[in-house]
Amino acid sequence: MNVPAPGLPARVRIHEVGARDGLQNEKTAVPTAVKAEFIHRLAAAGLTTIEATSFVHPKWVPQLADAEQLFPELGDLAGVHLPVLVPNERGLDRALALGATRIAVFGSATETFASRNLNRTVAESLAMFEPVVARAKEGGAHVRGYLSMCFGDPWEGPVPVHQVVRVAKALLDLGCDELSLGDTIGVATPGHVLALLGELGEAGVPTDRIGVHFHDTYGQALSNTLAALGHGVTTVDASAGGLGGCPYAKSATGNLATEDLVWMLDGLGIETGVDLTALTATSAWMAEQLGRPSPSRTVRALSHKE
Amino acid sequence: MNVPAPGLPARVRIHEVGARDGLQNEKTAVPTAVKAEFIHRLAAAGLTTIEATSFVHPKWVPQLADAEQLFPELGDLAGVHLPVLVPNERGLDRALALGATRIAVFGSATETFASRNLNRTVAESLAMFEPVVARAKEGGAHVRGYLSMCFGDPWEGPVPVHQVVRVAKALLDLGCDELSLGDTIGVATPGHVLALLGELGEAGVPTDRIGVHFHDTYGQALSNTLAALGHGVTTVDASAGGLGGCPYAKSATGNLATEDLVWMLDGLGIETGVDLTALTATSAWMAEQLGRPSPSRTVRALSHKE
Repeated sequence: MNVPAPGLPARVRIHEVGARDGLQNEKTAVPTAVKAEFIHRLAAAGLTTIEATSFVHPKWVPQLADAEQLFPELGDLAGVHLPVLVPNERGLDRALALGATRIAVFGSATETFASRNLNRTVAESLAMFEPVVARAKEGGAHVRGYLSMCFGDPWEGPVPVHQVVRVAKALLDLGCDELSLGDTIGVATPGHVLALLGELGEAGVPTDRIGVHFHDTYGQALSNTLAALGHGVTTVDASAGGLGGCPYAKSATGNLATEDLVWMLDGLGIETGVDLTALTATSAWMAEQLGRPSPSRTVRALSHKE
Repeated sequence: MNVPAPGLPARVRIHEVGARDGLQNEKTAVPTAVKAEFIHRLAAAGLTTIEATSFVHPKWVPQLADAEQLFPELGDLAGVHLPVLVPNERGLDRALALGATRIAVFGSATETFASRNLNRTVAESLAMFEPVVARAKEGGAHVRGYLSMCFGDPWEGPVPVHQVVRVAKALLDLGCDELSLGDTIGVATPGHVLALLGELGEAGVPTDRIGVHFHDTYGQALSNTLAALGHGVTTVDASAGGLGGCPYAKSATGNLATEDLVWMLDGLGIETGVDLTALTATSAWMAEQLGRPSPSRTVRALSHKE
């Protein structure tokens, strides 16, 4: 049943991360042809922003070492945004050479994660992103800035809101068009989400430049999303079938499943353009390729129906 | 991090259903001693309302055929409410004979589920409950009225709000002290939840007599709970470890896991009196007894931590 709730947006743009954030966490690399079919099926299900791959050095993420082979396979997807993650200028060069028009950089709100994930301080990582963002913008590309560990950090514990706001503003000052606020270890709850969004607003960050990226490690992703929607956020990251997650969280469950999100948005009468049946079939197919069931509750429930 | 959100209650009473609603869905009956230990551990973790068992005919629910043996084992739990489900006057007699002071009846908002589950029309089931509620009240017992299929029904589809309100009012008119609104197949979304709560309010049902009972079949239970809390609801049903569910929903996941609920409420600074660590240890222990992992994301995540 389609019943709107007061104070929520009429339309949400889903930023689909399964093909990149999901598959980069697989133990064994998925064949390029399977990735290409996955992304084509996601587009056919109505997703219009599909993060395709990462131009990081193959030594660090061997699962996505086929970015050069995969990206050209997606050239026929008219009207679908295909952002790619780039860690540095070398990655940007590779992405731009293949015609990428949307790129993303991956920052951290905490020093410990910056050190462990980027081998740099937060300030050093921002300095590394500066020419990446500038050159991407010069080339006409749209730039997304991921900000991880926005709520909690496995080493530092709760992350102060003002610290997140400071790095968020720095990313926007570099020229990022959009931010994605990541709850990388899945510990956030709705009050914390609203507090961060409120402080970002006070600091002059427009809500339409903010996306939210929640993890379902403790089952909180959808209620946090609901809180963010109530604040006016209209860009939500999700992963088809719930693929991926954070290896540091030591749990089977990671990203918010796109299907669980679409179930809620459909029920609320919020437009996404996504066909849930086609999407669920895609995730069920991908789960077969990976040889294990999807952690998405909606995928499981709909797949068990006759 | 403990960050309140505006418009939510300061305290929530969790109505723990795992020992009854959870264990009645197990293929093989759990030994009485294990049930008793489970309930004692739930009480030690701070739960103050623990639905203990059901006095239904053993032919229908053989998993709870030991109600007469189990209930006296719980006599030492001072200050803990131990409601029991009774289907009819015979069940009430058995419960009252053992000193039960809180009983629950189990109604349906739809004709099809009433027919399949109770072998009666909705009107006939209300007529059956009438002397049960009256005699329980005469004996000083507190009576909860479960209302299942409040949002969707597997045979009838979406359930009209006015139909639910009509049966809800009838249960209160019989003398029920409290209602539990069940999303038995887990299809509800927050707008639908608010619409039903709003109509109940319009019909004169006080919010403090309403509990909500959401299922996580499609991952929606916690966001629906958040919506209900925003409406002022302060009684939430949940099942330790996410035990149980509805056999008609054909999915591995059913009841909202108490741990996932407590994680959210703790984060929001909403008091429950529950110790999440002790509760998670209890559910991990119960999962071992049952020989399969808990479907609760919080239990899984916390159990994977060193």
